[in-house]
Amino acid sequence: MWQKKTGLIDNVRIVQYWLTIKEQRKCFIELQNGYGSDKTSSAFQMCHFLDLWILCTKGFFEMSVLEPLLPDPENGTQLKSRAHKVSESSKDDHFEPYVILEFDPKSKQAALEWLTAKLQAPRVDGGAELLVHTNHGEEEEETVLYVGATIDRLLIGAEEARIQKAYKNGGALRDLSLTDIYNFENTDDLDSFLTSAEKQRVILKAIESIRATEDETHIPGYPKHLLYPGKSVIKKYLSRKIVTSMYPLHEEEKLKRLTNEWCMFNKYLSAQPIDTIQQYFGTKIAIYFSFLGFYTVSLIPPAMIGIIYFLYPWASMYREATFAVFNLIWTTIFLEAWKRYCNTQCFKWGVLEGSGSLSKSLEEPRADYYGTMGTNAVTGNPEPVYPKWKRVAKFYLVTVPIISICLTVAFCAMLGYFWAEHWIKKNAPQDMGFLTTLQNLLPTIVYAIAIGILNNIYRTIAAKLNKYENHRLQSSYENHLIVKLILFEFINCFICLFYVAFYLQDRALLKTFLGTVLVTQQIVGQVQEAMVPFFFMKRRQTQLEQAAKRAGDSKKGGNEAPALERQTSNGTCKVDDSFKKQAALEGLMDDCTGCNDEYLEMYIQFGYVYLFSSTFPLAALWALINNFIEIRSDAFKFCKVFRRPFTQQANSIGAWQPAFEIIGLISVITNCALIGMDPEVKKLLPSELSPVNYVLIFVAAEHIVLAIKATVAILVPDLPKWVSLQMARQEFMAKMALRKQRIIDAAQKKKVLMDAFKAKALNQMTS
Amino acid sequence: MWQKKTGLIDNVRIVQYWLTIKEQRKCFIELQNGYGSDKTSSAFQMCHFLDLWILCTKGFFEMSVLEPLLPDPENGTQLKSRAHKVSESSKDDHFEPYVILEFDPKSKQAALEWLTAKLQAPRVDGGAELLVHTNHGEEEEETVLYVGATIDRLLIGAEEARIQKAYKNGGALRDLSLTDIYNFENTDDLDSFLTSAEKQRVILKAIESIRATEDETHIPGYPKHLLYPGKSVIKKYLSRKIVTSMYPLHEEEKLKRLTNEWCMFNKYLSAQPIDTIQQYFGTKIAIYFSFLGFYTVSLIPPAMIGIIYFLYPWASMYREATFAVFNLIWTTIFLEAWKRYCNTQCFKWGVLEGSGSLSKSLEEPRADYYGTMGTNAVTGNPEPVYPKWKRVAKFYLVTVPIISICLTVAFCAMLGYFWAEHWIKKNAPQDMGFLTTLQNLLPTIVYAIAIGILNNIYRTIAAKLNKYENHRLQSSYENHLIVKLILFEFINCFICLFYVAFYLQDRALLKTFLGTVLVTQQIVGQVQEAMVPFFFMKRRQTQLEQAAKRAGDSKKGGNEAPALERQTSNGTCKVDDSFKKQAALEGLMDDCTGCNDEYLEMYIQFGYVYLFSSTFPLAALWALINNFIEIRSDAFKFCKVFRRPFTQQANSIGAWQPAFEIIGLISVITNCALIGMDPEVKKLLPSELSPVNYVLIFVAAEHIVLAIKATVAILVPDLPKWVSLQMARQEFMAKMALRKQRIIDAAQKKKVLMDAFKAKALNQMTS
Repeated sequence: MWQKKTGLIDNVRIVQYWLTIKEQRKCFIELQNGYGSDKTSSAFQMCHFLDLWILCTKGFFEMSVLEPLLPDPENGTQLKSRAHKVSESSKDDHFEPYVILEFDPKSKQAALEWLTAKLQAPRVDGGAELLVHTNHGEEEEETVLYVGATIDRLLIGAEEARIQKAYKNGGALRDLSLTDIYNFENTDDLDSFLTSAEKQRVILKAIESIRATEDETHIPGYPKHLLYPGKSVIKKYLSRKIVTSMYPLHEEEKLKRLTNEWCMFNKYLSAQPIDTIQQYFGTKIAIYFSFLGFYTVSLIPPAMIGIIYFLYPWASMYREATFAVFNLIWTTIFLEAWKRYCNTQCFKWGVLEGSGSLSKSLEEPRADYYGTMGTNAVTGNPEPVYPKWKRVAKFYLVTVPIISICLTVAFCAMLGYFWAEHWIKKNAPQDMGFLTTLQNLLPTIVYAIAIGILNNIYRTIAAKLNKYENHRLQSSYENHLIVKLILFEFINCFICLFYVAFYLQDRALLKTFLGTVLVTQQIVGQVQEAMVPFFFMKRRQTQLEQAAKRAGDSKKGGNEAPALERQTSNGTCKVDDSFKKQAALEGLMDDCTGCNDEYLEMYIQFGYVYLFSSTFPLAALWALINNFIEIRSDAFKFCKVFRRPFTQQANSIGAWQPAFEIIGLISVITNCALIGMDPEVKKLLPSELSPVNYVLIFVAAEHIVLAIKATVAILVPDLPKWVSLQMARQEFMAKMALRKQRIIDAAQKKKVLMDAFKAKALNQMTS
Repeated sequence: MWQKKTGLIDNVRIVQYWLTIKEQRKCFIELQNGYGSDKTSSAFQMCHFLDLWILCTKGFFEMSVLEPLLPDPENGTQLKSRAHKVSESSKDDHFEPYVILEFDPKSKQAALEWLTAKLQAPRVDGGAELLVHTNHGEEEEETVLYVGATIDRLLIGAEEARIQKAYKNGGALRDLSLTDIYNFENTDDLDSFLTSAEKQRVILKAIESIRATEDETHIPGYPKHLLYPGKSVIKKYLSRKIVTSMYPLHEEEKLKRLTNEWCMFNKYLSAQPIDTIQQYFGTKIAIYFSFLGFYTVSLIPPAMIGIIYFLYPWASMYREATFAVFNLIWTTIFLEAWKRYCNTQCFKWGVLEGSGSLSKSLEEPRADYYGTMGTNAVTGNPEPVYPKWKRVAKFYLVTVPIISICLTVAFCAMLGYFWAEHWIKKNAPQDMGFLTTLQNLLPTIVYAIAIGILNNIYRTIAAKLNKYENHRLQSSYENHLIVKLILFEFINCFICLFYVAFYLQDRALLKTFLGTVLVTQQIVGQVQEAMVPFFFMKRRQTQLEQAAKRAGDSKKGGNEAPALERQTSNGTCKVDDSFKKQAALEGLMDDCTGCNDEYLEMYIQFGYVYLFSSTFPLAALWALINNFIEIRSDAFKFCKVFRRPFTQQANSIGAWQPAFEIIGLISVITNCALIGMDPEVKKLLPSELSPVNYVLIFVAAEHIVLAIKATVAILVPDLPKWVSLQMARQEFMAKMALRKQRIIDAAQKKKVLMDAFKAKALNQMTS
């Protein structure tokens, strides 16, 4: 009966789900040793049926080899049950947890149990097929779920997530494929084949893929918290604060090594260990630090020129112009070079996909993406589908008007600030000592507070609107959010400068304004980012001690364990105490806030440095000094202050790339205008020049610089030669394989025809 | 012995080269019929061994089936020789020629024979494996080679050229693959499976792929005409005029149908049969006509507005500005829409490749691309390799300076023309009647002649430089040539207008100048393109009659045939007389000049219409009328005047796309400047505006329009949704297949290990 299943691939799959991968490995090694030694020979004697059966189903040889060995069909069933037993016995009671879910102390028991059951249920029943250990907290304490998975579950998940690993013979990265897993590097010990970051990603995906079915209309115990079919369950738990937090655990040892290499303050001038960061924190964070480093290095030439200009001031119409033109071309070179560098790194990490539209289709939709259940148009897998026109309509009819209103409010606040300052200077009584100072500072203070409040309101609105737009992919969700944030910060930070430079046309004010804002923002930023984390670390150390004390207490009361055991024995597995301790400690740490705020900070700095560079050449030097500290303080934050984040994939800095490019473009206009407006420059040009021609000269210069920028951007290919060659080679191989595959498919179809023919031919031959 | 060849693919390949595809088809059909009928049954009786052997090698069933049927190993050899005989007997003496090579009457016999031998030689010996019939001309007449190929040769060539054909079940286009050729549509009659255009392309590729080896240092009979190893032989023959021309034959019937549908002058308003054009003339020419049609339709809205403006003149500052802004946005929409439309068509035709770098690597290098023999980095196939730095060095150190000098000369000529005209108007005596007119016209006449001469010199230089740069791909070769031509024409046609518009600032002159140039050029062009072809056709008809007469004469003297036969019998095959007649007639036709001149014409027209559209709104109408005629006269040229061209692949209009886009960009600047300079507009603006602010308003307007153009270009995706979905699906299938393939490869490797194990296991079972 089971012999009928002849499809090579199908059977390999069946064996995979049925026996553990470790067992398959054992069979394979014994086979390679040729069953020659006495020890393996006896092992072979013991289970030759089983081995043979496995090998047959794997397509290693024809099923007919087994036929003479099977006296009666029942043997097959025996075999099957035996194989099953082997599979069962290999399960371990203790497991390593990778992800922690903290429940609110007040959460209902029903909701907790329902989610736990879902996490443990087989995937065919809509579960995640994970291992879960529940640690019920005492009164007023949160219940904690420790989530892990068998190696098999992790490997299958890794294959589905299309994680790329190094292939033997050359080490090129390929999508992990379980059927030839032993052709990948480092598969001798499957337990450590996947990094902890990869395991955590697989588990996160598994948890997020638990979606409500048609019958499940609300979270058990919470009739008001409705669930919609096809929508991720865990996101509802998180948004309703039933699960207060979900985070993966740090790896103490690796983290220690990384910290020593990376965020010690005596390592200012050494390169960052980007590959290690990528392995530990994932591609997205690694790209952020890589970009930060790249950008910092790129600041060195303008900073050098800035120093020279500062030390040796001379007057020439070319002085400012040369610096401005250098900066304008330099931004383009920097951004193009970064694109190449980033693509090369992503290729090495196996996250650079060839074609955009394919990788977009293969990317899983966001966990809280909703829509009616349908199928992916490319892969045919089921996934929620949301009509595009609805998203577009929401964007243009809701988002655009609301954002416009917000921006207008911010702009009006700015105008109000300048008006108030102007009014006070003119009309208010002077010579009142301290009161005068206060009076003069009043508009600035009010404006600063107003901006802070507006900023918070705006961010909330932006996040809500972005969620409301219901983007399918995490990447497009983030890009839209980034654009919203940038727009506001642009108004916030740069419009003032534009106002001073081009409306008030006050060069001196612009210079002091720019210098003050840049230096103030950087000092405030450094305090926020280096001092506050230090304080947090101190606080955490105290908490650590308290927690350790508490943990010791609960250990003393170890006699209560049976009660706990009883609670957890219901299908759940056990977890070592060391993990429990670690989870308790990391639960106290801050949630990782992602990189977008850091990018935004750099973005504003980039604007300050390049938009008005001809006015304030020292800006690059200030930025450079700031960023040298920034790298290490950000590293410290990620290693010591934040909980470990789930790794995220990325193959570029996303919407930040065009955002930086737009600053580059705008800076051409601003710098040309600034130089044109400079009275020094005006003096140096021939006086018979009419004002109109004077303007036209600068307009022409602007167009030439823009043309040079465009040419540079077009001439620099986004991919280094060797990367595009490698990618083409891989694509070529895929094409050739497709062709081969088609032949094999055709041959299989013909086989049915052949069978009849074969019998006939043999008859005719023998007769 | 031959049973050892077990690789499925290898054997199929062997059978393919060994038996004709038709024979394979026969086997397959008999197989499908189950060998049931008496007729096929007896056929089966006759050659069951052979059939079985073929089927075994095809992997339809195991080679071991044959073992009991083979009493001794010699049978295998018998079988092989018999299969060979079948293969030999199927060769036909008469064949259909697809390509004609005309030799110079004075060419040496040795060179002719050497090339003929090369054409016929097997591919393993560096030949082209084609069928050739030599028609030795009488004294003073050219010798003609008729080149054809067996169906097998054509199909193998088509597979290598990666020609895409419709696959059964859905009709999606796929690279032709011989091993499952019967899964493609229309394979019932293999003779007509490939279109004549495809066959001609395969033969052309075969002829071009004959390359000189290390030993062959010169063309036999011409010790001075050196050959370099790895360089295409036929190109040397063509460039040295030993072969005066090489062209494929028309298909009378299809051409007639196409002519009726397409280039009758009563079909002005009907759509062009683009798909038929693509099948007959190839993608490149089809894209040209598609673009011409698309562009013509796109001229309708501006032409309509032009008419309205002409009929209802009113004065308003918005009048010109509105029209200009509409035109500026319209060019962007037109170019973006064209990109989408072109991509969609190319996808339908199966020439739109996903990734650029892959298709570039797979594209065969140009026939006269030279370099040391190496291997393609992606496919591993041998091909000449030329270091990139050499090409770059040649470009920057040789091409750029020479081209710059040429452009400067053209620019000086233009200045000289204006200076001379100015000087004559001022200084020369007037009132001399006819002489005055002549005198006034003198600079124009001299300039026109000078431009004509310069143009010819420049084109020769450009072509030589382009050849010297040694581009690997035909596409990049053409793109570089196009850029060179455009640069010159730009100076030639547009710089005058810029000079008049912005240096002389003479609006009236600009308007008359533009109108005169546009209308004159179009009338001259139409005469050249519609009248001259008509004259050619007339001339050809006379020649036809003469040729027919001559052909009749030679037929009467048919008794000489044995002598001719003797000459050709030496391994060459015969050709029907009808083909000889046709070849003789088509030999008299003009060589196809390609589409670049037509594109250039459109390009200049595009410039005239949009660069200064605010001055001369009727330009679009003139262009529209011209293009309606142009479509049909170009069609007439391709169908009736030119020899049939070899089909060429293309998936866009190549360098013309950015060239048109650049005109679009420049037109923003020119139009803003023109409107700004318009005294009418100046009057309508508030008079208190300072001149500088007046200029700044237009600069701002220009930037806004540029921003809108950029936004439109970015927002419109290059591929329609359904095309990118289809492509992603295909790529996904390729990836899945690669994965499957890897499993099968792994299984094959393991098979060696298995054999030992299998024997052992069986032993242990039975003992």
